[in-house]
Amino acid sequence: LTRSTVAELARLLDGEAIGDLELDITRMGTLATAGADAVAFLANPRYRQQLDASAAGCVIVAPAMRDDVAARPAAILCKDPYLAYARLTQWWAARTRTPARPGVHPSACVEPGARVAPSASVGPLAYVAAGAVVGPGAVLAAQTHVGAHAQVGEGTRLMAHATLSEGCSIGARGLVHSGAVIGADGFGFAPEAGTGAGATWVKIEQLGGVRIGDDVEIGANTCIDRGALEDTVLDDGVKLDNLVQIGHNVHVGAHSAFAGCVGVAGSATIGRHCTAGGGAIILGHLTLVDHVHVTAATVITRSILKPGQYSGLFPFDDNASWEKNAATLRQLHTLRERLRALEKKT
Amino acid sequence: LTRSTVAELARLLDGEAIGDLELDITRMGTLATAGADAVAFLANPRYRQQLDASAAGCVIVAPAMRDDVAARPAAILCKDPYLAYARLTQWWAARTRTPARPGVHPSACVEPGARVAPSASVGPLAYVAAGAVVGPGAVLAAQTHVGAHAQVGEGTRLMAHATLSEGCSIGARGLVHSGAVIGADGFGFAPEAGTGAGATWVKIEQLGGVRIGDDVEIGANTCIDRGALEDTVLDDGVKLDNLVQIGHNVHVGAHSAFAGCVGVAGSATIGRHCTAGGGAIILGHLTLVDHVHVTAATVITRSILKPGQYSGLFPFDDNASWEKNAATLRQLHTLRERLRALEKKT
Amino acid sequence: LTRSTVAELARLLDGEAIGDLELDITRMGTLATAGADAVAFLANPRYRQQLDASAAGCVIVAPAMRDDVAARPAAILCKDPYLAYARLTQWWAARTRTPARPGVHPSACVEPGARVAPSASVGPLAYVAAGAVVGPGAVLAAQTHVGAHAQVGEGTRLMAHATLSEGCSIGARGLVHSGAVIGADGFGFAPEAGTGAGATWVKIEQLGGVRIGDDVEIGANTCIDRGALEDTVLDDGVKLDNLVQIGHNVHVGAHSAFAGCVGVAGSATIGRHCTAGGGAIILGHLTLVDHVHVTAATVITRSILKPGQYSGLFPFDDNASWEKNAATLRQLHTLRERLRALEKKT
Repeated sequence: LTRSTVAELARLLDGEAIGDLELDITRMGTLATAGADAVAFLANPRYRQQLDASAAGCVIVAPAMRDDVAARPAAILCKDPYLAYARLTQWWAARTRTPARPGVHPSACVEPGARVAPSASVGPLAYVAAGAVVGPGAVLAAQTHVGAHAQVGEGTRLMAHATLSEGCSIGARGLVHSGAVIGADGFGFAPEAGTGAGATWVKIEQLGGVRIGDDVEIGANTCIDRGALEDTVLDDGVKLDNLVQIGHNVHVGAHSAFAGCVGVAGSATIGRHCTAGGGAIILGHLTLVDHVHVTAATVITRSILKPGQYSGLFPFDDNASWEKNAATLRQLHTLRERLRALEKKT
Repeated sequence: LTRSTVAELARLLDGEAIGDLELDITRMGTLATAGADAVAFLANPRYRQQLDASAAGCVIVAPAMRDDVAARPAAILCKDPYLAYARLTQWWAARTRTPARPGVHPSACVEPGARVAPSASVGPLAYVAAGAVVGPGAVLAAQTHVGAHAQVGEGTRLMAHATLSEGCSIGARGLVHSGAVIGADGFGFAPEAGTGAGATWVKIEQLGGVRIGDDVEIGANTCIDRGALEDTVLDDGVKLDNLVQIGHNVHVGAHSAFAGCVGVAGSATIGRHCTAGGGAIILGHLTLVDHVHVTAATVITRSILKPGQYSGLFPFDDNASWEKNAATLRQLHTLRERLRALEKKT
Repeated sequence: LTRSTVAELARLLDGEAIGDLELDITRMGTLATAGADAVAFLANPRYRQQLDASAAGCVIVAPAMRDDVAARPAAILCKDPYLAYARLTQWWAARTRTPARPGVHPSACVEPGARVAPSASVGPLAYVAAGAVVGPGAVLAAQTHVGAHAQVGEGTRLMAHATLSEGCSIGARGLVHSGAVIGADGFGFAPEAGTGAGATWVKIEQLGGVRIGDDVEIGANTCIDRGALEDTVLDDGVKLDNLVQIGHNVHVGAHSAFAGCVGVAGSATIGRHCTAGGGAIILGHLTLVDHVHVTAATVITRSILKPGQYSGLFPFDDNASWEKNAATLRQLHTLRERLRALEKKT
């Protein structure tokens, strides 16, 4: 059990404690679920009502809310409550999780010629191929796969069933979730006229790799393809959610973040600090400048050269209404022509 | 080889056999492919024509079709032919599939402190971490992964390369297909103002778990993230197809079913008996009441408080027609203004 | 290091060498990155400007560009430069990659009753079940999974964490990327009226398999479900990118190719030489004839009986413009009615 007083947590978060400074806190919770021994937070003023209803012993709020929490058992005032919450989860995780034991598990398979730092941990049934380099403090969970000449940076963790293929690299402090595949072949074929009524596909061997910077997180079952001739590149601080597809030779700029099920086609160049909502698709061979934000389920079909929010999703409706509007949509061009004709008449 | 007479199958399905009751049935088939030794079914009147053309020795149909099958070699009348077909496949599977052998395969890795029921089966190269509990009759196929303190209920099966992460649980009679990842981190980061022209991301450790009820099926390479502070929850009887993404702190009500490639963003609350077609997306922090049905490829951007069918997908067309309509769509608001102006004039 | 003269490469590609025939080539590159010792190619006239700026020692171009490359150090004229490039990558890969060693790695698990050709390679921690057949020259990478009675054709490669389930087969010269799952259950349930306010789901056991032809490539984390009664079928030469979902009883015709994140629902029949762009969805129980091309992110909701390009995606826009147009879209049917009324009036 991790326990701490309100005063200690305030010091940790560089905040100001008010109320009962010696109150014991033994867990973190949401405003809705936290009890007298728990700390919760309020970052979004939208959830203000939940604060009043909350039984949380301690709440983290912005300094502007000092009066609103004055009557509570305890509170911590922090300039950025959401950031404070993030830091607190890290502190909590570090205290409650069992660290991986350094060394190679007897059931793991480390090929001769692989270089594994003594402080690294290679879990049960993990595989490290010849020529691979696993940095200090790196953790390969059970059943992970590190291909030949691949590199895992300092402190980077690969979770169960993650794959880092031949010749691919990831920097320091990375986190690759279960089932992620880094370095499968890009999707490249040249058509060759066949004898039948259509071309067959000739494979373009994918000779490049994947190069991932520091502090990158890759979601579960996400795929990042190796480049055709050059490398596919993810810069420092990139965050990818689950089931994301990154095509060959894509370049994702630093600190860009993509939600689940996003797809980026080959040779797209994405700037820094970009975001894409769930299910968005960015087509290939185009460029997004820094600070472009793509709404969920939007398909980007042209380059975007101006920062901003871009959207393109069909608004949902009850089925009957949608059917009528969708049917009319197929005559939209004709409607415009009719309107034009009418305008000329009147 | 499994063989049975028409009379035996009718008893099994609680139906009425007509025609040659002693006819030997040795396989199941579709109306189109079944031969004289096979049983097929007709559930949807749309496929009525296939019945007449079918060479099936025995057909399962609704009682209302008694006259239509009177001249056939044999038939079984069942109130719900589709349900009867489902039950028959189960009976067939139970008789033709080799059951997993109880015990731990010598190549599996079961950490000290794991509790594996004597009747459970832990396959080759499977991994069970310390503190994990594998219930009676549970089957861990080859190369599955059960993290520390995870729980697998009675009779639940994890297929090859499935991952049940630390502290996550699944109830009885579940089925988790290959490559599914239960309990990767939710996608949570707090922005921190950086020195450059944009924020960097501070990880919010995901301290919750995933809690899955009884009779739940999880498709291949589907991902269900662990919660941030509380758990992500799937209630009894939920069915998820392949490549589905369930974000952190989502709650899916009992008997809801999502087709392939559906994405549900964090903290969405889905009711009971809901369905979503393939590729549908449900955004985060919203609520769907019971019996909401989302059409394939539809994006749900607001809460839905009334049961029913909801849709929002762009109708496809030949490319030239689509291009004209899509181009006009970008001027739709202007068209409305022009129409309004015209209405005022006339 | 692989090195070759321009003359040798021209012979290999059945092209005409011009310039310095003895020039040493030691790597392949793009026009933008290739140096004096590298060969690059120009297939698309759109990138003509890059040719002039390129420092590549040798360039592969079409015969029509003979004059444009006359002043360069060296060039190879090929009828189809893109195809020549594909062939050259294959030649390069064959020379630079370490071939898999035949035999069974000591850490692999090959069940009694499996038939592995002596020239096949079974990598570390791979699993081959009883009754499985692994053909001559086939390569099972580390941690792959071949289920009972599954078949791997001659020269076919399964990459790390790939799954070929029980009774499924893939032909010769196939390539299955990491995390792909061939033969998970199709998504089939019959509703059974429950005691509550809604049906529960009764599992339809999926008794069919997956049958894949020769020269098929399956992307990372792609899923191909087994059939319900009959098999799911992929014909020769089919190419699937990453994170593609193929439902049960789908039939994909020869040489069809689907980009990343495509979903095909159950019992769809796709013709030969079809393509689908990233994120496209094809609903179930419908037919696409040969040579149908589906644009990225398009949802196909009806059968297509005429070859051609089909599209249906919402054009993206800056968020404010999209919002206005999307809001109007929900009144589109009403707009049409108003237009009609106006037309009658004038």
